[in-house]
Amino acid sequence: MDLAFHTPLSPDAQRQYGLDVPQPFAMADKVRFSELDILHHVNNKAYLSWFETLRVAYFNQIFAHHFNGMPAPRNVLRNANVHYVKEMVLDETYIATARVVSFRRTSYVMEQQIWSGDLRATMTGVMVLRTPDGQSGYPLPEALRATLIKNDGAVPES
Amino acid sequence: MDLAFHTPLSPDAQRQYGLDVPQPFAMADKVRFSELDILHHVNNKAYLSWFETLRVAYFNQIFAHHFNGMPAPRNVLRNANVHYVKEMVLDETYIATARVVSFRRTSYVMEQQIWSGDLRATMTGVMVLRTPDGQSGYPLPEALRATLIKNDGAVPES
Amino acid sequence: MDLAFHTPLSPDAQRQYGLDVPQPFAMADKVRFSELDILHHVNNKAYLSWFETLRVAYFNQIFAHHFNGMPAPRNVLRNANVHYVKEMVLDETYIATARVVSFRRTSYVMEQQIWSGDLRATMTGVMVLRTPDGQSGYPLPEALRATLIKNDGAVPES
Amino acid sequence: MDLAFHTPLSPDAQRQYGLDVPQPFAMADKVRFSELDILHHVNNKAYLSWFETLRVAYFNQIFAHHFNGMPAPRNVLRNANVHYVKEMVLDETYIATARVVSFRRTSYVMEQQIWSGDLRATMTGVMVLRTPDGQSGYPLPEALRATLIKNDGAVPES
Repeated sequence: MDLAFHTPLSPDAQRQYGLDVPQPFAMADKVRFSELDILHHVNNKAYLSWFETLRVAYFNQIFAHHFNGMPAPRNVLRNANVHYVKEMVLDETYIATARVVSFRRTSYVMEQQIWSGDLRATMTGVMVLRTPDGQSGYPLPEALRATLIKNDGAVPES
Repeated sequence: MDLAFHTPLSPDAQRQYGLDVPQPFAMADKVRFSELDILHHVNNKAYLSWFETLRVAYFNQIFAHHFNGMPAPRNVLRNANVHYVKEMVLDETYIATARVVSFRRTSYVMEQQIWSGDLRATMTGVMVLRTPDGQSGYPLPEALRATLIKNDGAVPES
Repeated sequence: MDLAFHTPLSPDAQRQYGLDVPQPFAMADKVRFSELDILHHVNNKAYLSWFETLRVAYFNQIFAHHFNGMPAPRNVLRNANVHYVKEMVLDETYIATARVVSFRRTSYVMEQQIWSGDLRATMTGVMVLRTPDGQSGYPLPEALRATLIKNDGAVPES
Repeated sequence: MDLAFHTPLSPDAQRQYGLDVPQPFAMADKVRFSELDILHHVNNKAYLSWFETLRVAYFNQIFAHHFNGMPAPRNVLRNANVHYVKEMVLDETYIATARVVSFRRTSYVMEQQIWSGDLRATMTGVMVLRTPDGQSGYPLPEALRATLIKNDGAVPES
């Protein structure tokens, strides 16, 4: 199939690539030589980079404009639970996905996946928003909370 | 205090550096510029590299000789649950630790910590041993199981 | 313009992206968050990774089949001269290029460029082919030499 | 020999480790698993990281205090010429060195080496100081120029 890289993929494009449940945000990329280790497969750290790339794009597209005119929050990973399902090798293409599944006052939980025809890895990440000095939690604006509920089906938690 | 880098640290050396419960394997290193991101703190992926460095050293010291005369197993990370407790910055020193807390026939669970005076991050990793072709599980030798029970207090699980 | 990623680009596609002299091999990609450093620009090491990705693709497409039925050579960087022309930032797209400009019996010189509308970086790399044990030089096959002369305008040197 | 890591090494300590000409700044470290590629040797990019670690330490120790009370300059790599002399493998220790060999009004040339018993790699780097906005050159303060001449034997160039 013809896979478009570095651009948000439609639900149909995701389904054609094997995802049974299309995600709110998904982009494609390709394995690089520098991501391989001595076992000739993609090293576990590389997946963290792929997830990060997508989280940053997601933040810039969905979160960032809600902080216009305010100091930009620090958007920091507090917990990462990564499951490696099936190894990847050089030149394979993949789709990385993101979905906010729940949020609290100053944090949110993101579920991410890597697909390459079939599922290769998943990550559940707990993200926290902090003030620029890192000293305090930074509340998610009300309009952002509404967007996450509407777009991602996110669940507000107290 | 005078911290020795890149060499296994005694329980006393670990205690002096702040660890309340010394671990079976621990070595010290120092934050590098290349591990920082735009937030001027250590990026989340760098910790994965620190944990990996210690796992490889642990494997080479404790596991490897049990496979002498046999094909070397692939030692692969299946699941990583990383908790980021407190951020780190340039030039901080740290101790990375490793302990096998339990094992099954062809897998084991490792708990790892990063300390820099106080606790900075933890990881629980599920590791699997596979045959060189990656097709089958590779059992932990009996003598290795005995070593893990004795040295690490690891619990055999069925 | 509509830029196709991770696929060899035609001379016309390269010209449309700003290259005044199209190169024999060129592919596009995009800056990632993990490639930035505390200065919020792409760190110098990231360019080395981009050049490497293209060299590996070039090797696999142009060199590899000339060694069918023979032990695969080690293809190793001996010298890298990198010039950083203009900094890059998050989300910029770029084209990385490769051209073999000359070769000797067991080595070759590759010129590489990074373009993002205008020129951002160049690298002249001296590559050596070694036997699998790394002990001896590995001669470029005659048919490969002919290909490099024809495709890249490479100059044979004694 | 007993090698102290992450601390400036005396000329004698450098000589004992094999350096025929001790350098003004030198620190030791050790190869990590994450620096290896599929050829089971240290990848060319890792050396750039080692050189960078030492340049940053050198800058913070020798340059930084000359800019107290002034906006901190951007210290950027303009050109890197790296020569790979002899490959390195897992767990090898090494010394990375730095010396400023010459300077102009807003730039300087640094020579760096990697030693592991014998010489493994060299780099000649052209560094430029820029104003915080990156728009203009930032002159080296007079006292810094005097320090570079005295400590490193650096040559002022017009």
